[in-house]
Amino acid sequence: MDPRQSFVIIGAGNVASHLAGALASAAYRPLQVVGRSTSAAKELADTLDTTYTVSLNEINTQADFYVVAVNDDAIPKVLSGLKINDKLVFHTSGSTGISVFGNKFTRCGVFYPLQTFSKNRVLDFHEVPLFIESSGPEAYEAMTEIAKNISRYVRPVDSALLEKIHIAAVFACNFTNHMYVIAEDLVNEIQVPFEILLPLIRETFLKLGSGPPASLQTGPAVRGDVKIIEKHRKSLENHPEYQKIYTFVSQNILELHKKNTGNE
Amino acid sequence: MDPRQSFVIIGAGNVASHLAGALASAAYRPLQVVGRSTSAAKELADTLDTTYTVSLNEINTQADFYVVAVNDDAIPKVLSGLKINDKLVFHTSGSTGISVFGNKFTRCGVFYPLQTFSKNRVLDFHEVPLFIESSGPEAYEAMTEIAKNISRYVRPVDSALLEKIHIAAVFACNFTNHMYVIAEDLVNEIQVPFEILLPLIRETFLKLGSGPPASLQTGPAVRGDVKIIEKHRKSLENHPEYQKIYTFVSQNILELHKKNTGNE
Repeated sequence: MDPRQSFVIIGAGNVASHLAGALASAAYRPLQVVGRSTSAAKELADTLDTTYTVSLNEINTQADFYVVAVNDDAIPKVLSGLKINDKLVFHTSGSTGISVFGNKFTRCGVFYPLQTFSKNRVLDFHEVPLFIESSGPEAYEAMTEIAKNISRYVRPVDSALLEKIHIAAVFACNFTNHMYVIAEDLVNEIQVPFEILLPLIRETFLKLGSGPPASLQTGPAVRGDVKIIEKHRKSLENHPEYQKIYTFVSQNILELHKKNTGNE
Repeated sequence: MDPRQSFVIIGAGNVASHLAGALASAAYRPLQVVGRSTSAAKELADTLDTTYTVSLNEINTQADFYVVAVNDDAIPKVLSGLKINDKLVFHTSGSTGISVFGNKFTRCGVFYPLQTFSKNRVLDFHEVPLFIESSGPEAYEAMTEIAKNISRYVRPVDSALLEKIHIAAVFACNFTNHMYVIAEDLVNEIQVPFEILLPLIRETFLKLGSGPPASLQTGPAVRGDVKIIEKHRKSLENHPEYQKIYTFVSQNILELHKKNTGNE
């Protein structure tokens, strides 16, 4: 087998660190880390045993491919500074699409890992689904090969599909986490530690395997218990934002449940 | 040690089944199951190796304590039919409070297990936090002894506190599950299986141990990425209910994050 290709990782945040680590583990060679801050760039470069720069002008142009794993807002600026027009380049954003590349690059695409990446969390990248949108067959083939070397689940998408997957991920991850944030805030107010909710949260997650989520719903809304919902709403009067969320989520559960059971 | 006390379980649903099972495992003796439907009552009675009835008039009056684990709406009716005024009786609702007992019972209370109970799910009841509200010291002592025999975490509460814990549980469990319901609906629309989201959901849950939930938030809202939030909102136009939830939860994340970081 040929030695694996080399890459430059642009970005030194959570996605960049996890993805670069996964690529290096699959024997791709990290040539350089390009970061905004010296400390983050150096830290990732040290981990990868490679060099780093904080200047887009100093990007190594000898790599086989370029990974742009920066904040969505920063992608256009990074791309306009990249002087590697004939090389494969892809970004990792679930919400920016392929149009951001314009006509500047001959082989480019989106390489979206469906996961929440945090510093200091070890995770098995093989379990991270990868969605690929590409500028053409050549880019698609190259990106898919890379993807398959680091993940078990690789799937082609277009921008519209990718946006929907990203929105679903926002609900499944970010909004779920926000429900934990609210729950923590509410129990902390009464001097009850958040840890008390962990067995409940664990079971809510573990149940998921045993059926579609709608079939696993419990609580006042799915029981159609409007009296309790009203009591809870009143109890949340000092938290108008939580009250709003409580109201709309409960309404939606009630409605979906009516639809599913055919009761009006 | 004396042989454990006997009990009657009123209700044959998820909470009743799990709690009666935990009591029986701790060597409390199930005297009788009282159910609304013959099939459910018989099924639970068989599991507990005891008798059952579907009539409140036939409740065995010889038990040491009575557990009312029925829907909130049914509690008053069950209590008015109970002719065991001098015995310990408690219900398991997190949202009904102790006032429902009126003056009829000398020893009564609320025995709230903070967990989501589903049929056919095996769970370790020792990990289920139990909250106790009681009519007086005698009931409190008896209920606490029972609670400590089946759970590691037992805590006295009053009705106001219990309601807050219950609301927090609704966010942490029911609303979290509803986020999964919405995510599933969105990916199914584009013929992507829900399973693709499971690694993300798993990681969102597993991360919880490593810090307060607010510190673990990721995604467009916590990054303050209003452009992407607007795109997502637009993309949800065909789902006005999801759009509303998306908007209010995102706003709340944005606001909390501003408050925490001091950026306005």
